[in-house]
Order: sequence, then C-alpha cells, then structure tokens
Amino acid sequence: MGSVTLSDIGVTPLQRIAVIGGDVLHALKSTDSDFHGFGEAYFSTIATGAIKGWKRHGRMTMNLIVPVGMVKFVFYQEGGSLFREETIGIERYVRLTVPAGIWFGFQGIAGGESMVLNIASIPHDPDEVERLPITAIAYQWNNI
Amino acid sequence: MGSVTLSDIGVTPLQRIAVIGGDVLHALKSTDSDFHGFGEAYFSTIATGAIKGWKRHGRMTMNLIVPVGMVKFVFYQEGGSLFREETIGIERYVRLTVPAGIWFGFQGIAGGESMVLNIASIPHDPDEVERLPITAIAYQWNNI
Repeated sequence: MGSVTLSDIGVTPLQRIAVIGGDVLHALKSTDSDFHGFGEAYFSTIATGAIKGWKRHGRMTMNLIVPVGMVKFVFYQEGGSLFREETIGIERYVRLTVPAGIWFGFQGIAGGESMVLNIASIPHDPDEVERLPITAIAYQWNNI
Repeated sequence: MGSVTLSDIGVTPLQRIAVIGGDVLHALKSTDSDFHGFGEAYFSTIATGAIKGWKRHGRMTMNLIVPVGMVKFVFYQEGGSLFREETIGIERYVRLTVPAGIWFGFQGIAGGESMVLNIASIPHDPDEVERLPITAIAYQWNNI
C-alpha cells in the first residue's frame, strides 16, 4: 500500500448517449483498461452538503461514477501534505478508478440528493476497511 | 433460446441500508447465486411516461436495478400469449435477472426521470441485440 500515490487515481471520460425517452450513460466495461475485476456494485446516496468519510480500503479498487447530481471526492495519502480533489457527476461525467491504500471522503454538492455508483473489484468485506472520523484528517470542507 | 420462459426471470430483494448523510443501496455481488459474470454496467434514463422497446438479447443476461424513480418492465416470449409485468424502483427495491431470449420493453412511471442500471453479463455487442418497433408486439401500454 505504501507505494500508492494520489496520482495513481485514474480519471476516464464516459460517454453519455442521447436517446429518445432518456439518455444512456456508460459506466464500466470488462474490456476497459482500468477494469480490475468485479466483486460488487452498490450505490451510496449523499444529501446536499452531507459529508461521508474517512475510509480507506486495503484490497478494494473502486470505480466511482456519479449518474445523479454532483459529488466532490477528496483523497489523501497518509504521511502526505496534499489532498487531491475530484468533483464529478452529470456536469463532468467521468469515472474515477481509485486503488487500495488511499483515504477518501466525499460531499454532495448538487442542489438535491446525489448518487454514487461504486463498481468494486471485491465484494464488501469489513475486514479490509479502515475508518476515521471526519475531523481526524485536517481537510477544510466547504459549508454547502 | 427456445427453452427460456417468462418464469425464468428472477426477482431478488435488495437491501437499502440507512446511513447518516445518505442511504446505501445494494445492487449485485459476484457471490450472489444469480451472478452470471460481469461484462458491462450502464445506465438508461427514462422520462415520465416514455417507453423504450422492444429489444431481445441473444447472449446477454441482464441484471436490472432501479435506484431512482419507478419503472415498469414488460416481458414477452415469442409465440406466447402472455406478458409478464414487473414494476420496480425505490418503492419496490429488487433486482430483476433476465436471461437471454426474452423480448422486453419498459416505461418510466415515476413523476420525474427514472434511472435503470443494467449490470450485464457481456459487454454491449450490437450483433446480439434484436429490435422491434413498439407497435410490433400488441401490449397495451398505459398513458402516463
């Protein structure tokens, strides 16, 4: 885990295809170069201004997609002095690929509930997740 | 394909876990008994009253989840005289597992845009999809 850096987080533009009756939004294909296996897909909803974090996975690679609203993700590598911020959602429709070993938190910044889809490389396993209270890492979240 | 029937469509209740700041909604795990491999995940949005269909996959097993709104799916087996209707979404949070070989269409029935996640067993391949105009199969859709 020690060799992972914030620059290892991938950002992949995703297609949004206009279809009569409702658009089609790509998320992830098994043939994508940043596909690391399928373990579980689940949604996390996040209210306007709400913050979830901090969490760090020991084995899971996350693929994060925001098909509803806008979400600001903040990433932190232990021992570092920098944060990486990525704001994604309908106005910037990309996929974030996050390797294991990086602390992350996120905040809903749309004017309504936002929705995150995580397509994870392994099924949920509480033994590979570490958690810290939001105040434990000195990032200055905005009030929204 | 000829041996597939409408009763082969699976309905699996999914967990919706209350979390401060926003709920977590399960979708699919690789360890689920109705997991048939991961090929691609994508979203289809559908406006209120809009109808998409008909389509039939030759090889793809679909896992259909509706995390936003409510969607009525209608399934039809060629040569049969019956339709199977399944209305799913936030008020009935389940996963539909649909084997290849079944015609399907769907309609948004929530008072706003609904969103379907398909976790498909193979990546999109236009060669394995058949399409018919919505009028080609005599199902009586409701006006919404």
